[in-house]
This record gives sequence, structure tokens and C-alpha cells, in this order.
Amino acid sequence: MRATVFHAKGDVRVENVPDPSIQEPTDAIVRVTHACICGSDLWFYRGVSNWEPGWRTGHEFMGVVEDVGAGVKTLKKGDRVIAPFAFSDGDCEFCRDGLFTSCSHGGFWGTTSDGGQGEAVRAPFADGTLVKLPEAVEGDERLLKAMLPLTDVMGTGHHAAVAAEVKEGSTVAVVGDGAVGLCGVLAAKRLGAARIILMARNEARIAVAMKFGATDVVRERGADGIKAAVEMTKGGAECVLECVGDMAAMNTSIGAARPGGTVGFVGVPHHTEAIDISRMFRHNINLRGGVAPVRAYIPEMIPDVLSGALDPSAVLDLEVNLDGVPMGYAAMDRREAIKVMVRM
Amino acid sequence: MRATVFHAKGDVRVENVPDPSIQEPTDAIVRVTHACICGSDLWFYRGVSNWEPGWRTGHEFMGVVEDVGAGVKTLKKGDRVIAPFAFSDGDCEFCRDGLFTSCSHGGFWGTTSDGGQGEAVRAPFADGTLVKLPEAVEGDERLLKAMLPLTDVMGTGHHAAVAAEVKEGSTVAVVGDGAVGLCGVLAAKRLGAARIILMARNEARIAVAMKFGATDVVRERGADGIKAAVEMTKGGAECVLECVGDMAAMNTSIGAARPGGTVGFVGVPHHTEAIDISRMFRHNINLRGGVAPVRAYIPEMIPDVLSGALDPSAVLDLEVNLDGVPMGYAAMDRREAIKVMVRM
Repeated sequence: MRATVFHAKGDVRVENVPDPSIQEPTDAIVRVTHACICGSDLWFYRGVSNWEPGWRTGHEFMGVVEDVGAGVKTLKKGDRVIAPFAFSDGDCEFCRDGLFTSCSHGGFWGTTSDGGQGEAVRAPFADGTLVKLPEAVEGDERLLKAMLPLTDVMGTGHHAAVAAEVKEGSTVAVVGDGAVGLCGVLAAKRLGAARIILMARNEARIAVAMKFGATDVVRERGADGIKAAVEMTKGGAECVLECVGDMAAMNTSIGAARPGGTVGFVGVPHHTEAIDISRMFRHNINLRGGVAPVRAYIPEMIPDVLSGALDPSAVLDLEVNLDGVPMGYAAMDRREAIKVMVRM
Repeated sequence: MRATVFHAKGDVRVENVPDPSIQEPTDAIVRVTHACICGSDLWFYRGVSNWEPGWRTGHEFMGVVEDVGAGVKTLKKGDRVIAPFAFSDGDCEFCRDGLFTSCSHGGFWGTTSDGGQGEAVRAPFADGTLVKLPEAVEGDERLLKAMLPLTDVMGTGHHAAVAAEVKEGSTVAVVGDGAVGLCGVLAAKRLGAARIILMARNEARIAVAMKFGATDVVRERGADGIKAAVEMTKGGAECVLECVGDMAAMNTSIGAARPGGTVGFVGVPHHTEAIDISRMFRHNINLRGGVAPVRAYIPEMIPDVLSGALDPSAVLDLEVNLDGVPMGYAAMDRREAIKVMVRM
């Protein structure tokens, strides 16, 4: 089959690789129909993460089950499934608690496993990992596109909002205008936030955020941005969603939080300096979150996507086919696209 | 009057200073009967915090009201009162939410205000700050000594436990064997923890912790300590109380926390390096807490102390009079005393 392979900084290629096959009785083989390129893929694309040449790419995909191992109980050939960005046995104590990303036997797509940006994937622990989509989505490209962000960014934005303790009537600040930040806006709105302040400056992305429910925008950065957010909220936002993962975003988030408030952080941390723990201490600002257990959120979100109540598809503003994946990376790297959908 | 004054690293002195007087209608003058020396006083005593010569010391005291301003409504001359380590107006939105330490008009005892380690204190916002003790304590030195830690360390240990989300049946690790750590053990026990692991190595303090409800002890430090705590709990403690404030304690706390668990931090942060945010991210470990709003906890704890259900007095293992304060600092600095009570 053909799949995307990492070669070097700025260099991913679509190549022939071995076809996946059932290796464990709990495996399934999924023929990928839709995949994405993720903002977090840019960490290795830009050479920030240490990736090795030859590793597979892509951790967001949907597809159709092509084969199942003898131990798979809930899925069969022909089922349409969606995958979270991490696989998990569904059965260990962390999975049972909903913390699928800390699964005792779990892992992530790509690197030395199959990646989502390819024609097919061997999915370990198919029962614990994959979620069957309802028949209604079949052939409905609009619905399929709205489901696709549930693989990662929609669940991650939701996790940020849950971690930040967003509830009915909350005042929320969202730091970051990537797909996760925009989905964070949508998630905060869905959880009943009364006010949602986006801290960003890209006008096209701000437009998506306003469509998703943002009520205010802070375009300033650093200390000026914090000052503006604190003034706008008369003391800071109760809930802040940190959706970037660098030092500036983390400290902007802590700075914009109200005393006693909570920062929900989901940006993969790529900073090595000290966060502003002194402000956290002085004002009892909580820091919660981490890698999103999106497997836990997919089942609760599917009905909302089906009903039209939830539609994050606007974050997918560029569509390519498998051959177009390298171009998709380049477009996201240049911030020309928010997020790329790969339609096989 | 006489009060303790900071001069230089390792040098505090009891000196004559101006008598306090009512300056605002909301002030009260409190004649101090009991005070403490705090582990956090060692930060300036050891030259870690930048303190200026001439600043007053002490933020933990009880006493008797000697005079009140015209605007004080709930207190009168002769009332026995206990003070939290911070004063607060009791009326702003943060105080109304119980976050008294973020009071819009509040502050801390000592430095340029009166300190607790002296004969008397001008207490701003007397109605919002001071808590009247029941008549039953009068003349009962055992009860008074049991109430005294409510000024700071008992409320701070409790805040660590609340921040760490300790509840009935929790598995808890406590990092630090100072008075706050020991009170953290007591607080965790009071909140229903099933297992309380103290991470410490001072045998005298371990003995107090066992009396307070600790069930296990980890004596190793650093990576070995983390390994022992994680093995003992088969994956880490659900709740970890960080009761020191240095880098080692923070990262031990994060390391000993179970995936999805929570670190409640109350040690004044004296580290400038990066905390282990990578582990926090990978395993959704929450960091909550900060400076304890002990004013919120005093009223709920007084009845438990009165009934004998709560007695943190064992942390006060050395008693001095006002002249003995410099000796008390030296004893705590050498870790010969857990915590010093100053009986005027």
C-alpha cells in the first residue's frame, strides 16, 4: 500500500510500504477513507521533535474495517469506524476510568506503527480503540467531514474546556487559533460558556472562531494581551484554554486567568523554561489537562454531530488526496491552511 | 511595645517599636497572647527571600481585642480572636468566593505592617479578618495550643488536601515533613483518606505523622523516592500534597502522582526551573492549590478542635517567650524544632 513517511525536517513523502496484516487476535485492518494533518504534526515537520527517517505519519483517520482478528467482538468487515489519535485496550484501570491515553498497553499511531496518512492501518485492540459510526453517515460527505475532527482536535478542544472547568455561564479565554483552539471555542460554547474571548490575530481564523461562538477577540500578545484580557474580564477569565504548547501561550494563559481560576492545557508542551508558578501560587490558579483521552469523548459527540448541534468541519479548510499530503504539510507550515483533510 | 524585627540573614531581634493604634475605622488592636514561627519565615531568615532590615516578622497569632475602630461591627474589646496569616476585607468578590488571599484590599502581616511575633498588632478589616474564638477556650492552654495552628499550617495543610481533591477512600502521598506536611497528613485523614504515605526521613517527624494518620513512609528521595511511592501504590497516588516549595519536592510530587491524579501544592514556590510538565501532560496530572485562604477554613475547624476531633498541636514542639524568638528561629533553621510556639 501507499503511506506517508517522514524523511527529514520539511520532507514527508508518500511511498510504497508493506500492507498491514492481522498480527494479534485483537487487531483489525482499517482501509482509510479520510485522514487529517494535525498542527502537532508540525512539531516533527519543523524539526522541533526528534523524529527518525522512515517513521510513518498521521494519527487522525476514519475508514472501513477490512479484516478482524479472531478475538475482535464488536466489529466486523464493512463497519465504518473512527479512530482516536491513540489506541488503547479499553480494559485496563485507566481505560475504565476514561483515561484512555494512559492505557497500560496503549500507544500512538505513526512512528513505528501504521500512520493515518496512508491507505490502511493495522489497529491494535480494535474493540477498545475504534468506534463504529452510525449507518446514517454512509455516503454523506458533509457528515463524514463533520465527524472527522472527533479523531483529535474536537476531542482535544473539548478536553481543554473540561479541564478548565467550563460550565454554564463561564467566562472563558482561549489561547491559540489553531484547529484545537477553534474547537476549544466550539466546546466552550457547547458547555454553556457565556463569554468566549479568543486570543489570536489571524483574521481568517478569528472569523471561524466567531462562527463557533467566540464573543470577543484580544489581538495583542504577551503582556499587552494579558492586560487586555484581564481588563475585559475585570480581573481575568475563570477558565482559560491553553491550545498551543509553547512558553508564551502557557504564561499568557496563566496571566489571563482569574484568581481561583483554571487553565486547561492541551498544547503539547514544547517549552523547557519555568512557567509562571509564582502567579499560580499567589492566586490559586489551577493547571489541569494534558493529552486528551478523545476515545472517551467520541461516543458522546457522535449524536451531536449527527443532529447538527456540533459541526467542527470548518477547521478543515483545505482538502487534498493522498498524493497531496506533502503539499498539505507545507500549507499548514506556512499557516495558509488551518487544517488539512486527506480524502483517499 | 516590643516586637521582632528582621535585620539580616540569620539575625532577627526583639526590639522596642511604636505601639499600634487605630488608623482606619475598620481596624482593631489585638494584644497578642500566642504566636508562631513558621517554616516559611525561614525563607527570609536563610536569605532566600529578599527582605529589608527593619521589617517586622510573624504572621501567625491569637490574642485579645484591646480596641476597635468605629466601623468594627462584630468584635469588641476583650474578645479572644484568632487571625489567619493574611488580612482581607471579607467583602470583595474574591472574599465572598472564599478566596480571601486574593482579596482586593488584603495583605500579609509583617514586613511594613505589624507582625505576629510582637506584643500587639493593628489588624485591618477586623470584621473580615479576625475570627472570634468561643468562650470555652479561655484559660484552657491545651485548647488554645490546638487552635493556634489554624492561623496557618493547619489551614494550609487542609488546603493542600482540598486542592489535591482528597476524598473518602483516597490514596494520598504527602511530600514534606514540616508542620504543613504533618498538618496535610491530619487533613487528609480528616477528609477520609484510606492510605496516607509520608515522603520524609526525619524519624521524630515521621512519628508525629504516624500519630496524625500516616499509614506508610517513603524514606528514599528523588527518583528512588518516586519509584518507591509508585510501586507502593501500583501506579502512583491519586492525590499528592506538595508541602515544601522547592524544585525537588514539586517534581517528586508530580512523579508520585497517578495518571489522572492531582498535586495540591502549597509550598511557597522557590524554584525557577521548569517543573515536569511533560509528565503532567502525558498523564493528565493536575496541579492545583497555592497560598491557602485559611480565613475560609478557620470557622469550619474550630468546632472540630473544640470537640477534640482535630488536634494539630503536636507540630508545636518547642515553646519560647517573646525574648526567645531569635532562639526559636535558630532551632527551626537547624531542624531541631518542627515549629515554635511563642507564648507572650
